[in-house]
Amino acid sequence: MSESGADPGDGIAVVGAGSIGVAFAIVFARAGLSVRLFDPDTSRREVALEEMAARLADLAAFDLLTETAEAITSRVTVVDDLAAAVAVARYVQECAPEKIDLKRQLFSDLDRRVPADAVLAGSSSAIPMSEIAADLAGRHRCVIVHPGNPPYLISPVEVVPAPFTDAATVERTRSMLTRAGLQPIVIGKEVEGFAFNRLQGALLREAYCLVRDGVATVDDIDRMVRDGLGLRWSVIGPFETADLNTRGG
Amino acid sequence: MSESGADPGDGIAVVGAGSIGVAFAIVFARAGLSVRLFDPDTSRREVALEEMAARLADLAAFDLLTETAEAITSRVTVVDDLAAAVAVARYVQECAPEKIDLKRQLFSDLDRRVPADAVLAGSSSAIPMSEIAADLAGRHRCVIVHPGNPPYLISPVEVVPAPFTDAATVERTRSMLTRAGLQPIVIGKEVEGFAFNRLQGALLREAYCLVRDGVATVDDIDRMVRDGLGLRWSVIGPFETADLNTRGG
Repeated sequence: MSESGADPGDGIAVVGAGSIGVAFAIVFARAGLSVRLFDPDTSRREVALEEMAARLADLAAFDLLTETAEAITSRVTVVDDLAAAVAVARYVQECAPEKIDLKRQLFSDLDRRVPADAVLAGSSSAIPMSEIAADLAGRHRCVIVHPGNPPYLISPVEVVPAPFTDAATVERTRSMLTRAGLQPIVIGKEVEGFAFNRLQGALLREAYCLVRDGVATVDDIDRMVRDGLGLRWSVIGPFETADLNTRGG
Repeated sequence: MSESGADPGDGIAVVGAGSIGVAFAIVFARAGLSVRLFDPDTSRREVALEEMAARLADLAAFDLLTETAEAITSRVTVVDDLAAAVAVARYVQECAPEKIDLKRQLFSDLDRRVPADAVLAGSSSAIPMSEIAADLAGRHRCVIVHPGNPPYLISPVEVVPAPFTDAATVERTRSMLTRAGLQPIVIGKEVEGFAFNRLQGALLREAYCLVRDGVATVDDIDRMVRDGLGLRWSVIGPFETADLNTRGG
């Protein structure tokens, strides 16, 4: 607990330094927030800042940074101990592998170690918080925060409360994500796939059927979406399109 | 038949000067091709070139033209007689209202008036050519060419042959559309909605269900698609995404 008495900085901890953990560290740090990044795997900890720097170099190459990559990575401290990473946290973004037993154990640990007024956000794309934190004393502060991939390019992020998540937690999560430059979208029910992957899955399911039935090829569909539907949807959403479009067009 | 002996130019006729007809005239003319544009309605004929000019002004405002709007509109001749419009045509793009009886009658007229080696393309988004041209002597040269809306921004265009459409017609259609700067996508079967609207419909259907079930609002879904799924799909199609993405992400 070496840093427990330290300056809390912005109080953001990212737990897990895989692909999504590194991406979340970039999101927060790019928004000017200081981050403590933890991973139980020494080798992950050792490469995390290099991975961040490589991704930031890509963003810089497309002119998507407003300051140097060094200035951004300087806000991220890689910490080798979970307790130290979260001891003064106000917002914890869990980014562990998508395994339910692992997430249950981790949230149990976090609930004991993280200050009582902090938000515990899980980054799952498929496991609802009801299945992770139902038995915890601090379950009211647990919420799913499912990002697009990668979240430093895809700003909408799903905030999925369990029935036991309280309104204050949702509000503080929304506020933190907005401050980080994301677009929090609060999902009304813990349905399978939440909303983003339901929408993505619906199109992909139809795409597989069209290929199976000999209507279009994989390449045809990718072109039709990339240069057609996706291009249009990147300007106006599906309901806006339905309003504007000619019937059936 | 006043112009039947005239210079065929590029031999493109657009029949119907509504929204899609004007848009197709822009596509062909922007690609440097000369076009004869016909509409049975005098008032449509009178405003067609003004509408073209207004849309070209929008494209110019976004720096999407490589020459002046005047140079483009100068390639379009509005013709007040169907026979004159198509007498020397090599490719006819029908853009009449989406009414089956009207299209049947029009294709019957076109099959009699258009030179035997010309393609007769119908712009329907929902009526297959099997239901329009089955009884015509020249049915082998009839094919659906369903554009995105608007086709001067959305380059993929569906080419939907009927079982009686011959391979030469498909090939000549593909060639003409490519020359016009579009991306022809030949659809393998006359399924309802073809492929573009099947894909669009699948996502929209799921979107309506999510709103109905209280999972997300209309505005949430438009933002999630516009700044998330659509943005990503405008760079990599759904199958490319499935290849690259983390499982379930």
